[in-house]
Amino acid sequence: MEAYEIFRDLAIIILAAKVFGVIAARFRAPQVVGMIVAGIVIGPSVLGWVQQSDFLMQMAEIGVMLLMFVAGLDTDLKELIKTGPAAFAVACAGVFVPLVGGYVLYSCMYGFSPIGSLDFYKAVFIGVIMTATSVSITVQALMEMGRLKTRVGTLILSAAIIDDVIGIIVLTFVIGFRNPGTNPAGVIVNTLLFLAFCAAFGFAFYYLFKFLDSRYEHRRRIPILSLAMCFAFSYVAEHYFGIADITGAYVAGIVLCSIRDSKYIAEKMDISSYMLFGPIFFASIGLKTSLEGLDAGILVFSLAFVAVALVAKIIGCGLTSKLFGYSWPDALKVGIGMMTRGEVALIVAQKGLAVGLMDRRYFTAVILLIVISSVATPILLKLMYRRDEVPRHRGKL
Amino acid sequence: MEAYEIFRDLAIIILAAKVFGVIAARFRAPQVVGMIVAGIVIGPSVLGWVQQSDFLMQMAEIGVMLLMFVAGLDTDLKELIKTGPAAFAVACAGVFVPLVGGYVLYSCMYGFSPIGSLDFYKAVFIGVIMTATSVSITVQALMEMGRLKTRVGTLILSAAIIDDVIGIIVLTFVIGFRNPGTNPAGVIVNTLLFLAFCAAFGFAFYYLFKFLDSRYEHRRRIPILSLAMCFAFSYVAEHYFGIADITGAYVAGIVLCSIRDSKYIAEKMDISSYMLFGPIFFASIGLKTSLEGLDAGILVFSLAFVAVALVAKIIGCGLTSKLFGYSWPDALKVGIGMMTRGEVALIVAQKGLAVGLMDRRYFTAVILLIVISSVATPILLKLMYRRDEVPRHRGKL
Repeated sequence: MEAYEIFRDLAIIILAAKVFGVIAARFRAPQVVGMIVAGIVIGPSVLGWVQQSDFLMQMAEIGVMLLMFVAGLDTDLKELIKTGPAAFAVACAGVFVPLVGGYVLYSCMYGFSPIGSLDFYKAVFIGVIMTATSVSITVQALMEMGRLKTRVGTLILSAAIIDDVIGIIVLTFVIGFRNPGTNPAGVIVNTLLFLAFCAAFGFAFYYLFKFLDSRYEHRRRIPILSLAMCFAFSYVAEHYFGIADITGAYVAGIVLCSIRDSKYIAEKMDISSYMLFGPIFFASIGLKTSLEGLDAGILVFSLAFVAVALVAKIIGCGLTSKLFGYSWPDALKVGIGMMTRGEVALIVAQKGLAVGLMDRRYFTAVILLIVISSVATPILLKLMYRRDEVPRHRGKL
Repeated sequence: MEAYEIFRDLAIIILAAKVFGVIAARFRAPQVVGMIVAGIVIGPSVLGWVQQSDFLMQMAEIGVMLLMFVAGLDTDLKELIKTGPAAFAVACAGVFVPLVGGYVLYSCMYGFSPIGSLDFYKAVFIGVIMTATSVSITVQALMEMGRLKTRVGTLILSAAIIDDVIGIIVLTFVIGFRNPGTNPAGVIVNTLLFLAFCAAFGFAFYYLFKFLDSRYEHRRRIPILSLAMCFAFSYVAEHYFGIADITGAYVAGIVLCSIRDSKYIAEKMDISSYMLFGPIFFASIGLKTSLEGLDAGILVFSLAFVAVALVAKIIGCGLTSKLFGYSWPDALKVGIGMMTRGEVALIVAQKGLAVGLMDRRYFTAVILLIVISSVATPILLKLMYRRDEVPRHRGKL
């Protein structure tokens, strides 16, 4: 293939992703939904204009990594510590209840399997996919309503951030347990070694960047070197510790989240992300989506999957926040605010596909979950908050 | 290869390119020189840490395309028209004299060949490489001295822009003539058809983006859709007309250079370019540079190549501006200002390599030309302008 031929695919992907993204936004759905649909439409399922290729896969991998890096950079450590116990409890419940819910759902439909068997892990993995609240969608929904800085908003945000961390740890464990040639003890040792690596190099890089930042604030070298660091962390995580590369990117983001230029770095990363890598990542999910496997069985599973995923978050997070002294209406808001799923669920599902813990046809269920939760959450939250006079400011598309 | 393995190469390339770029800047050389050296150091010639791969080649191709797109976007059509005849004449002489100089040099060293033979085109191609003044290096040098808005500065800038266009047309012709299965008439027809395509679609897209711009100024969709358009123009140029893909990207930039958001688009492109694609492009030139072929013969050729390339620009552009009424010192400034070579010379050389019109070992000469001209021009111009009291403002690295 001549190098210039990639331009054709890129032109089609970017154009389709943006057009469908804008259409999605018109219907008050997140743009990510539109981009996935764009991938389905231009991919083998419908028009067949663009096929998966090594190049697109590698670009998509950079896309995921950038997303996780930005999510890490956007982490507000102080806020996280302040909301403390309540957020942690809500996050734990928000991971635990869907995890169990997904496992039980899969096992009820396809039979319970002995602990440690491949089918057992497949059942657990359905639960793992349900665990991750999408920070970006939650934040955007609250921002669109001007409710991010309320008590409920802060709790949701902090819990969603912790939820993300716990979700990634759970993902890493489940994948690690299934890796051929590794045993549970090995996974735990690797995870601990990785934590030690993160602590040592994390602090070293934190102080290095703090020093660089004090001399070169707002200069190009800061985001450029941080991107190199992010690539390095991703590679080291996967290559030397068997930890998901996206975890490395996320940790790199957290390491840099409290230096002065963290917003500046995130801004630069975000531009590359939304201009090129993001659309390719989301569209490539659509390219991978197989609509051919969609039969009655999968449809029933998908609907049950969506119902369990949404209800599990509402029950888990809602009840826990009630325990921490929130009123019933506020507790319900927390539950609904936590039920949005987005790119992280896709990332997890893709990871599962790569390591053979998930079947391609369940992508339909995940996409359905994202579409429904992304559309339902803002609408339900709006109903809950009714018509308050808070000024609304929507992000530029 | 696992997808995550690209992260290793990317981390090394970005880090090395930035570190060497900063070192180059310390020595008042353009960063691009440092990035190329970084590629040589980490590549097979020295350390062997990074090898050329399909993925890096494709990323580099996107890098070139973004550079040319930004160059097109930065074009100031009004300025160009104002300086008019003088700039056009200087540009023509600045293309013609080096073109002949390069051809004569190669033929003198390796023998004259019959017109139309492969060796004839190889000799001409050495001249083609010499034609393109690098706009970015010229502009940066003048800006660093606060001399961009003088009469001499405007002439240099306008001439350099026209020079670029003529240079690309010459490149397209020479490559077109050598393409198997095409004849000169076919090349001319293809070029005319491409011009017709550019005129028709260029105006259509210009009005489309003007309309979009009036509704969505400074919103993400403008740069995103323009990037899609740039990819499309690149692909169409190469695939349907046999015109270099970078020409398509450049034309796409010129089409959009006078809409209100052109600076906004260029800014967004520039970030992706300097964060990731630019360093990969320049470093990959270094990765390709073979130091093994460096023998006495090539060294002599390289030095003669550099001398001819520099003197040809000074004579061609200097004498022509004298003819248009500039004083001898000002004419000399124009000649020196026009002698900088940069990314475009590399792009042209790479294109020649791809179509078999240039040998890999001549890259040494091109890199030497870029290094020497990029270092010499600012120093010589500074000597010419002596110690004037114009405030200096240097770009952030």
